[in-house]
Amino acid sequence: MTVRVGVIGGGQLARMMIAPAVELGIELRVLAEGEGMSAQLAATAIGDYRDLEIVREFVRGVDVVTFDHEHVPQEIMRALVADGVQVHPGPDALQYAQDKIVMRARLAELGVPQPDWAAVQNADQLQAFIDDHGGGAVVKTPRGGYDGKGVRVVRAGTDAADWLAELAEGDALLVEELVSFTRELAQQIARRPNGDMIAYPVVETMQRDGVCAEVIAPAPATSGRLVQVAEQIGCQIAAGVGVTGMLAVELFETDDERILVNELAMRPHNSGHWSQDGSVTGQFEQHLRAVADLPLGRTEPRSPWTVMVNILGGPLDGALEDRFAQAMAEYPEAKIHTYGKAPRPGRKVGHVNVTGDVLDDVVYVARAAAAHFD
Amino acid sequence: MTVRVGVIGGGQLARMMIAPAVELGIELRVLAEGEGMSAQLAATAIGDYRDLEIVREFVRGVDVVTFDHEHVPQEIMRALVADGVQVHPGPDALQYAQDKIVMRARLAELGVPQPDWAAVQNADQLQAFIDDHGGGAVVKTPRGGYDGKGVRVVRAGTDAADWLAELAEGDALLVEELVSFTRELAQQIARRPNGDMIAYPVVETMQRDGVCAEVIAPAPATSGRLVQVAEQIGCQIAAGVGVTGMLAVELFETDDERILVNELAMRPHNSGHWSQDGSVTGQFEQHLRAVADLPLGRTEPRSPWTVMVNILGGPLDGALEDRFAQAMAEYPEAKIHTYGKAPRPGRKVGHVNVTGDVLDDVVYVARAAAAHFD
Repeated sequence: MTVRVGVIGGGQLARMMIAPAVELGIELRVLAEGEGMSAQLAATAIGDYRDLEIVREFVRGVDVVTFDHEHVPQEIMRALVADGVQVHPGPDALQYAQDKIVMRARLAELGVPQPDWAAVQNADQLQAFIDDHGGGAVVKTPRGGYDGKGVRVVRAGTDAADWLAELAEGDALLVEELVSFTRELAQQIARRPNGDMIAYPVVETMQRDGVCAEVIAPAPATSGRLVQVAEQIGCQIAAGVGVTGMLAVELFETDDERILVNELAMRPHNSGHWSQDGSVTGQFEQHLRAVADLPLGRTEPRSPWTVMVNILGGPLDGALEDRFAQAMAEYPEAKIHTYGKAPRPGRKVGHVNVTGDVLDDVVYVARAAAAHFD
Repeated sequence: MTVRVGVIGGGQLARMMIAPAVELGIELRVLAEGEGMSAQLAATAIGDYRDLEIVREFVRGVDVVTFDHEHVPQEIMRALVADGVQVHPGPDALQYAQDKIVMRARLAELGVPQPDWAAVQNADQLQAFIDDHGGGAVVKTPRGGYDGKGVRVVRAGTDAADWLAELAEGDALLVEELVSFTRELAQQIARRPNGDMIAYPVVETMQRDGVCAEVIAPAPATSGRLVQVAEQIGCQIAAGVGVTGMLAVELFETDDERILVNELAMRPHNSGHWSQDGSVTGQFEQHLRAVADLPLGRTEPRSPWTVMVNILGGPLDGALEDRFAQAMAEYPEAKIHTYGKAPRPGRKVGHVNVTGDVLDDVVYVARAAAAHFD
């Protein structure tokens, strides 16, 4: 019988599961937030994922539930599990991607290298952390942040007064040391419910204004030891938190050649979009295989280099399609992926993947193709 | 504005357009023959493609019309064109894929190398052709044949008596010389309405019981001259018949090192399924780009070798999904594509693509993965 995978959330990650689902013969059903979402083609229901009855109705027709995003409340997920629904990743795992303080505490238990951190509830505690860490720190709201939102560099305990004032009783902000890093990396792992895991090659990610801008796969000029350490960290976390599906571990590589864990994501991730065209098994196919408890696919690169460049909405009107055609004409080797979203400034509306043998050329073409949208 | 491509026919070729349509941001709408067809996810209408009013209603919401198969009657296509609808390929081109006698006559006009042939209306004419061509010939019904159906080897003018008896007044059968060929090849060309063309590498195809069984891309042990001749023949035909979208030219390579045209198909073709995983631009993406008049993508192989093996329905019950899982487990490098069709003996229900550096290994893995379905 055809496996039916339900995806909560109708954004571009759900959209990009459609193509591999069709080829694998998986029936994809999406609970979208509204009409005209990215994943509209596979939307079988529209409604609020925070409404248990809507979610219950949606999951009735599926064999396994997974997610386009990490915002589904724990109580909804736990109610589904209590109903006997297969939920991947499950609430026990997903909590570590939903709350950065819970994540930091768990990584500490696992002995995974990470920046110094603390949970702070007032300006004095924050000031003390800053004083102990060279006069600066990064403050993060533990929940709900993404693409640089909910992250702030501070120099004084009073620099996060607004966020501290908004804290509910018993809640805290996460504060982390300012890591002096040379670059950012990302390590992806796929893990099945039966515990089988497979690692992707570690990649280099470049952020702009807190948003992933470019990815080079595999990470250039990376020693075999670093590749191995990144994979070990990824596998240790995947097993340690019991993730099912795709896990992305964002990493800092420091001046003194350490690898520290920055963030976790438990879903296909922007840092893995390169794999659609650059790996034997793209991350969206792999996520479906993993959550449907099917055997995992090989992850090695299909080309020496793959570069992914995001396309952000700019001051464009409805002419996005013309830009696509121009980019396709000039760079017939570029794989342009669109999200079916109206272009608003700074909004991710697509990405370009380019593969090849010579990194400089691949970077050039990927950037030049994406630049048609600037 | 999003381009809306309407596909007449809901089979696996329409299904395999879904994945690239999603990534390109093309809205695909399918007129399916019934419920539960391969391309069900994109089906927006169900009805008989021989009913002009049904087709007219379907095309109202699309910018361009293309096809899953070549069976749409000329009068339907011509009525659409008269209505001002963009139809690709158009009726003038598609007639050459719909009627093998019309095709042979056009190829003769174009001077394209092909087997000796004649249109015969009675046993005497057939016997005369056989006598002139070494005592044997191939008889084909000019219309409606596929996968070896409507093709028969004859040794006497009376061997096609049943087909001759069924001929309508003025109709004829096609008779062709029995070509002594060493292997079969296929050349694909994509052509835009503006005349831009791009060729795929020529591939070797292996048939079993008249059905495409395996494809090796590019065709092994092929001289540069042969590659060039095949591409020239393909481009000459594509331009000569005015095809828009994908053209597949099936070729014989003879004992005496000639290339002769066997058949034409004006749509994505089984001989091009390798390109989904083996070429920079898969044939389904390319077909959409061509019919939507978007710039064509590069066609070079992404690996030294890609092998495609068809999966035919066998004496299986509902256990097809188990076979998929077994094949995925044993060959995690294999790309298994499913058609969402109930397995009946001899029916194409999917295919496997495998890529790699060593042809013998690639052939082995592709066959072994597909053998899980025997």
